[in-house]
Amino acid sequence: MVLAAARNPLNIGAAARAMSNFGFSRLRVVNPYSLPFREARSAVGAAELLKQAEECATLDDAVADCSLVVGTSALQHRELRHPVHRLEKAAQLIRTELNTGRVALVFGSEKTGLSKEDLSHCHWILRIPTREQHSSMNLGQAVAVCLYELARTREEVKIRPELGEEARLASSADLERLNQILVQSLQASGYVKQGAEAATQGNVRRLLRRFNLQAIDAELLLGMLRKVLWKLEQQG
Amino acid sequence: MVLAAARNPLNIGAAARAMSNFGFSRLRVVNPYSLPFREARSAVGAAELLKQAEECATLDDAVADCSLVVGTSALQHRELRHPVHRLEKAAQLIRTELNTGRVALVFGSEKTGLSKEDLSHCHWILRIPTREQHSSMNLGQAVAVCLYELARTREEVKIRPELGEEARLASSADLERLNQILVQSLQASGYVKQGAEAATQGNVRRLLRRFNLQAIDAELLLGMLRKVLWKLEQQG
Repeated sequence: MVLAAARNPLNIGAAARAMSNFGFSRLRVVNPYSLPFREARSAVGAAELLKQAEECATLDDAVADCSLVVGTSALQHRELRHPVHRLEKAAQLIRTELNTGRVALVFGSEKTGLSKEDLSHCHWILRIPTREQHSSMNLGQAVAVCLYELARTREEVKIRPELGEEARLASSADLERLNQILVQSLQASGYVKQGAEAATQGNVRRLLRRFNLQAIDAELLLGMLRKVLWKLEQQG
Repeated sequence: MVLAAARNPLNIGAAARAMSNFGFSRLRVVNPYSLPFREARSAVGAAELLKQAEECATLDDAVADCSLVVGTSALQHRELRHPVHRLEKAAQLIRTELNTGRVALVFGSEKTGLSKEDLSHCHWILRIPTREQHSSMNLGQAVAVCLYELARTREEVKIRPELGEEARLASSADLERLNQILVQSLQASGYVKQGAEAATQGNVRRLLRRFNLQAIDAELLLGMLRKVLWKLEQQG
């Protein structure tokens, strides 16, 4: 990733943090003058990445070893006749290129974005699909969104399966036990009208099915209701 | 969007900017003490949105009119047994719910994220697919990534086939009423151990969220529990 002419070290730090979050490691910073970005406090958890960042005098240097250079911009730049791809499509193109070469993703300065000169180094422009009325994003946020999209399809970013064994749904037998005890409680409490026992039974049964109860929750609920029923029956 | 216990006004401003970029407008800020966030310079282009932001004393208040409350967390919270959905899947679920109800997307504080108590108000947890070794994101960046994904799927997710009024999910206020009365019943029945009131409250709150209750079922259940509680209290 290349940050061209970023002014605020905090933004460079934030960009580094997002890179680390999404598993990207090579950062190049292009600045005509030296910027004290390596100590940026915003690079929480990404100090090492920031330390390894390369400083380049020109964008030309920064992208020299890349086979695809992608500029980022909120604008359309129709006058430059640069192809523009929305982030989603852009991420696919970048992924494809990464099979065989290096890709530079270039962000401009906070205030003005990439200059016309900067853009001339780019093969095409990536546009984050923001509202037209307010398309200018914070630099760190724009970086995070782009890298999220790039990481999204990548299989290396693993997360654990969503739920373990304990997410097993309650069995019908569990539900039926719950049903019995809930109906008994309702009867003991006077909720069930004379002659409405069967209808209540059916209503409660359907209600419990709609809960989508996990086995462990059914057990929890059963414990609660048992206690309630026991108390209700004490008054006889 | 709900920011719970954010410490840094600049992050609140950055969140507001991302909301404006991606076309979201309702921001609620939960803070025990007043924070001078309305002047945050980071809300470039989103000053009006920030001005309209509502301040809430508690998360409970902030999500009262929402039928789906989604917490964000980098962690797995297996011990709390909250379902976890990756951002992509989460965005689809949120989109679907937005057809019929209001959704709260809740972010915690920069340092510690959402508390256990905060999470007990959430139906499930959204996880941005970051690297396991460095999953903690900057707040403003996390907000931007989530809203990007939500905006991206805006057109993808088709309107649900006609669902009647009865399929509307219970609001957080409904669930909280249920929670109160169920906990009272459990206390009256002797289920709640001395000193375990707060833990029970949290357990029951999470349990009720897992039920995925429809509004009409919440009402049904409330009627049942009211009667049970009334009976329990009669014995004094």
